[in-house]
Amino acid sequence: MGNCFFSQDKNTNVRVSLPAVCFVWEIAMVVLFGIFVRYNEEADAHWGEYKKTHNITTDMENDFYYRYPSFQDVHVMIFVGFGFLMTFLKRYSFGAVGFTFLIAAFGLQWALLMQGWFHSLDYSTGKILIGIENLINADFCCGGVLIAFGALLGKVSPVQMMVVSLFGVTLYAVEEYIILNLLHCRDAGGSMVIHTFGGYYGLAISWILYRPNLNKSKHLNGSVYHSDLFAMIGTLFLWLFWPSFNSAIANHGDGQHRAAINTYISLAASVVTAVAISSMTEKRGRLDMVHIQNATLAGGVAMGASAEFMISPYGSLIVGFFCGIISTFGFKFVSPFLEKHLKLQDTCGIHNLHAVPGMLGGFISAIVAAMASESVYSKEGLIATLGLEGNYANRGAGTQGGYQAAGTCVAMVFGIVGGAIVGLILKLPIWGDPADDNCFDDEVYWEVRICLMNGKRF
Amino acid sequence: MGNCFFSQDKNTNVRVSLPAVCFVWEIAMVVLFGIFVRYNEEADAHWGEYKKTHNITTDMENDFYYRYPSFQDVHVMIFVGFGFLMTFLKRYSFGAVGFTFLIAAFGLQWALLMQGWFHSLDYSTGKILIGIENLINADFCCGGVLIAFGALLGKVSPVQMMVVSLFGVTLYAVEEYIILNLLHCRDAGGSMVIHTFGGYYGLAISWILYRPNLNKSKHLNGSVYHSDLFAMIGTLFLWLFWPSFNSAIANHGDGQHRAAINTYISLAASVVTAVAISSMTEKRGRLDMVHIQNATLAGGVAMGASAEFMISPYGSLIVGFFCGIISTFGFKFVSPFLEKHLKLQDTCGIHNLHAVPGMLGGFISAIVAAMASESVYSKEGLIATLGLEGNYANRGAGTQGGYQAAGTCVAMVFGIVGGAIVGLILKLPIWGDPADDNCFDDEVYWEVRICLMNGKRF
Amino acid sequence: MGNCFFSQDKNTNVRVSLPAVCFVWEIAMVVLFGIFVRYNEEADAHWGEYKKTHNITTDMENDFYYRYPSFQDVHVMIFVGFGFLMTFLKRYSFGAVGFTFLIAAFGLQWALLMQGWFHSLDYSTGKILIGIENLINADFCCGGVLIAFGALLGKVSPVQMMVVSLFGVTLYAVEEYIILNLLHCRDAGGSMVIHTFGGYYGLAISWILYRPNLNKSKHLNGSVYHSDLFAMIGTLFLWLFWPSFNSAIANHGDGQHRAAINTYISLAASVVTAVAISSMTEKRGRLDMVHIQNATLAGGVAMGASAEFMISPYGSLIVGFFCGIISTFGFKFVSPFLEKHLKLQDTCGIHNLHAVPGMLGGFISAIVAAMASESVYSKEGLIATLGLEGNYANRGAGTQGGYQAAGTCVAMVFGIVGGAIVGLILKLPIWGDPADDNCFDDEVYWEVRICLMNGKRF
Repeated sequence: MGNCFFSQDKNTNVRVSLPAVCFVWEIAMVVLFGIFVRYNEEADAHWGEYKKTHNITTDMENDFYYRYPSFQDVHVMIFVGFGFLMTFLKRYSFGAVGFTFLIAAFGLQWALLMQGWFHSLDYSTGKILIGIENLINADFCCGGVLIAFGALLGKVSPVQMMVVSLFGVTLYAVEEYIILNLLHCRDAGGSMVIHTFGGYYGLAISWILYRPNLNKSKHLNGSVYHSDLFAMIGTLFLWLFWPSFNSAIANHGDGQHRAAINTYISLAASVVTAVAISSMTEKRGRLDMVHIQNATLAGGVAMGASAEFMISPYGSLIVGFFCGIISTFGFKFVSPFLEKHLKLQDTCGIHNLHAVPGMLGGFISAIVAAMASESVYSKEGLIATLGLEGNYANRGAGTQGGYQAAGTCVAMVFGIVGGAIVGLILKLPIWGDPADDNCFDDEVYWEVRICLMNGKRF
Repeated sequence: MGNCFFSQDKNTNVRVSLPAVCFVWEIAMVVLFGIFVRYNEEADAHWGEYKKTHNITTDMENDFYYRYPSFQDVHVMIFVGFGFLMTFLKRYSFGAVGFTFLIAAFGLQWALLMQGWFHSLDYSTGKILIGIENLINADFCCGGVLIAFGALLGKVSPVQMMVVSLFGVTLYAVEEYIILNLLHCRDAGGSMVIHTFGGYYGLAISWILYRPNLNKSKHLNGSVYHSDLFAMIGTLFLWLFWPSFNSAIANHGDGQHRAAINTYISLAASVVTAVAISSMTEKRGRLDMVHIQNATLAGGVAMGASAEFMISPYGSLIVGFFCGIISTFGFKFVSPFLEKHLKLQDTCGIHNLHAVPGMLGGFISAIVAAMASESVYSKEGLIATLGLEGNYANRGAGTQGGYQAAGTCVAMVFGIVGGAIVGLILKLPIWGDPADDNCFDDEVYWEVRICLMNGKRF
Repeated sequence: MGNCFFSQDKNTNVRVSLPAVCFVWEIAMVVLFGIFVRYNEEADAHWGEYKKTHNITTDMENDFYYRYPSFQDVHVMIFVGFGFLMTFLKRYSFGAVGFTFLIAAFGLQWALLMQGWFHSLDYSTGKILIGIENLINADFCCGGVLIAFGALLGKVSPVQMMVVSLFGVTLYAVEEYIILNLLHCRDAGGSMVIHTFGGYYGLAISWILYRPNLNKSKHLNGSVYHSDLFAMIGTLFLWLFWPSFNSAIANHGDGQHRAAINTYISLAASVVTAVAISSMTEKRGRLDMVHIQNATLAGGVAMGASAEFMISPYGSLIVGFFCGIISTFGFKFVSPFLEKHLKLQDTCGIHNLHAVPGMLGGFISAIVAAMASESVYSKEGLIATLGLEGNYANRGAGTQGGYQAAGTCVAMVFGIVGGAIVGLILKLPIWGDPADDNCFDDEVYWEVRICLMNGKRF
């Protein structure tokens, strides 16, 4: 475990920079939370008084009980789902699950602030008032950053990932504000704001950080039997809790109910078609774990923006059907093409699981919104589901569809431009990133107890 | 990884058959969902109107909030629980978790239709109206099929498993209709309809598919250290969420509450007695992982049909006590006997975990139902718990007990006869099943990256 | 796998003692449950009548719906969280997860009785009436015992652990009664009653059982790559569900809501500072998995007693900030010191994760309680949150703070004195504990299928 494992042309020592970044940012969080963050009326001890003044008769009406079970599922998806999905590399599992832990734990604090300023500011006091929905949104925001991590996995230092998180959360909060508040798009499960943005953000960074000699680490850029099984833990918890993800901040009642059903159905179809294409494109019909781990989830990504809509069960099935196919094809053919011809190294294939299905999900939601009618939704239902209230009372379904499409483009632009800028920042030679022959190797940033057998590392 | 690993007497190439089956069936799903499946009134955008016309004052009364947390637990049990429980084989973990994923994702779609026609059909429109309870029931139905998979694990092709699923779901829906609707049995946790049926269905198929030369794959029919740990993930999530399984579709209020308590207690007792018997029957008192992974769950299986009843906490404890013992004895002595003398090869020992405890659970529920009285349940409670309403208002507790026993027998007959027929279909030489010396080996149906060390596969 | 692996100076055969203990205790449970345990009014079939007589209009008001989702999260923490967290040892993963399973499954039954006698006894009938809150408290109690197991991991027999559980649960129920009922402390997340007690209980036992020659098993007292990943499953499920742990038995409404938010925030800060200190104290800034697996959780432990209080989000952040630092320093410097100079062998480092952060959490709650005021809490909120009702209506916030500190000391004393006594009992030479050169080895108590490669065990 001596120097022999480390090439000398890059300094990967993060003993000063990583603790420095962690402490500076965490202290900033303490100060900013102290100035800005308080409990909202449902989490504050004044809730008893609030209930009386608002004629609420039971604690069960506290939003906590509507959303907490979904929040916990989302929480598992972010840390266990994303974390373990990325453990598939044979020698980068510590980095996958450990850096996910760090990125998301830091990111959610910054997200509470950034999203709070945009969405939960009490203008009379200047305070951000947080409740369960803020926690869900902070987790969502970290999801966007972790998608980007998928493209960079194994090629960046933890310090770089802290930078990616800081800027990623900031950009996310802005694009989210533009898409959800200014354009007034509906995007309960984040096809646009999470997947499209996160996907293109990661791809743009990865494109800027292109490593021509990455094949020096080729022997580590793959899985072993048990690392593929650990990854399946991630896949399954993502797949299972995706109905909660898409319904977590949907409208109370039928909104959450319908979002869960649509996502459940769409995901089921993705599995079947992903298996079909995987088998069809491999020798002797053998299945490829990469496809099973990833493309099976495409239906959940694409259903994000339409989950609350009356897309109907067969509509959900069709979305999952095609996205399972498109995503598997992407892993099989598009990713190798992008790497060869566009110099885009995408470790986890987020192009095929997040960027493209997310974008498709945005456009699908445009179509579904444009087709919405009072006969299908009821008058009241249409207003509630498309949010055509207040300033937007005069917006028709067709117009809403146009805005859904526009929102998707905004997410893409934010991802690409923001990612390119962050990528350039990360090119500075101060972040401790690994050399080309040290990529995908936990030993660079982790104390690893090596098993030697007959002189070979195992 | 060349041809040397494959014997030439069987063609395991599924490159045409697997994609063909997946696409044909998935397209059929799209068409049938298009014709039949719609949202029910609690998931439809008309919910706002429905609330008004039915004097419902809060969204919290939407069945989603009563059942969604339990649904998510059941969902985890089906995919993570069953999937990982079966990863114990040293070289069939991809197949265990991957085929579970495929089977259940396809099966739940077909179950939504089959169960929908029997239980959720709106006769005025001819549409199946689905809500959260349908999703739970679809997952339950897949549970039955996955139990059968446990007996067949490692010996069948994915195409065969798709056939097992198609017929299994169909048979399940019919026996469920007979048991729950025609016989009007109570079976909230599915001792009869899930475990007894699924257990005997799998055993019958396995009996028909008996392989006299299976010992050619003997070296792969066992666990290694880490595969046993992966299996414990499955065991624990099954054990932990079983209270949700047995209470998921129980009556609102005390029904769900009591079902969860009974199952929690019964499972705890199973663990202690399974450990005791395991230690007692092994050299030096050492514990066997097979028993810990399986027999600890027997109390949950057996409590399925009685979970809602006033069996009382010590009653639950007694059920778990004996089922932990019986199941462990089954793994230790009965399974080897069945294999040797009845030519029944049961990879996961579902005979001991599902078939027998499920059947016992059915008969236990008969006794508990027959002993029910108004003094214990209250008048209203007895009617609600035993379902003695409408056409069944005149049925006494004793009669209900008789029907519970009859229902158990129906489940057994459906499992055995249905399994025998499906087994014969699977004997056709077109399904790509593995040769006797290729069983329990992921390389037949999966792209596996092999680690070679000193020329030996590892 | 023959005798060569076992030293002859200790008899580790538990073939009589383990089954005997299991059966005797389980039969005792059946008898005691038969005499004492019944359903409470929310789980009993009389709930329908109860609703009417208490003017409850909806089943949703059943406490089941307020607490069941949190209960399931706690349940996962106890069995998967604790169980897998301790799998980090290279050759004791079966023992970690298997004995956790046994201990908790037995312990929860005894806890239902012990805690029932103190808290849920219906004096008119002499029956313990249980509901969902009793299940949560029983799981909590097992948590305390499992913390103690962390100190003893690999050095005791399963029979010894059954003794530790029996006495641990008993002591827990008594100290809990003193702290929560007699001193009337507030401790929703159990900083005092669970972590402080459990931590010092385990440390005291381990101190009594000091093994001077434990370094004979040194080669097994460490992790390998995949065992560290299994441990991360435990870490993450503990970390993710800790908000449910601390809010599970908090007050309905704002109490549960606030407890979840505070814990979520505190834990996030712990991750960032634990990473910082870990990197700062290792060569080249490399992270140590031991710190990531453990110290990241310290914020949840320390927030236990204050979770319900209006500590405010930045207060939570500060608690997590410092506890992440203190805990990581503990693992790095204090544990080696304790082992060398105080003869305290603490396998999992519970001193740093439970004992110290738990004690700090108790004292933090004293300060926060003492500073509570009506302007921050509202009059009604102060009464509800500090429980200043009935006999305690005249107790001021400052006095309550004093009692919180006193409660912490009671927990510590119970842990140390109780643990010392139990440790002496465990020194009797009848329990089948392993010899010094057989510690941390699953083969002593488990049937392990060994992989031999070139004559070396692997």
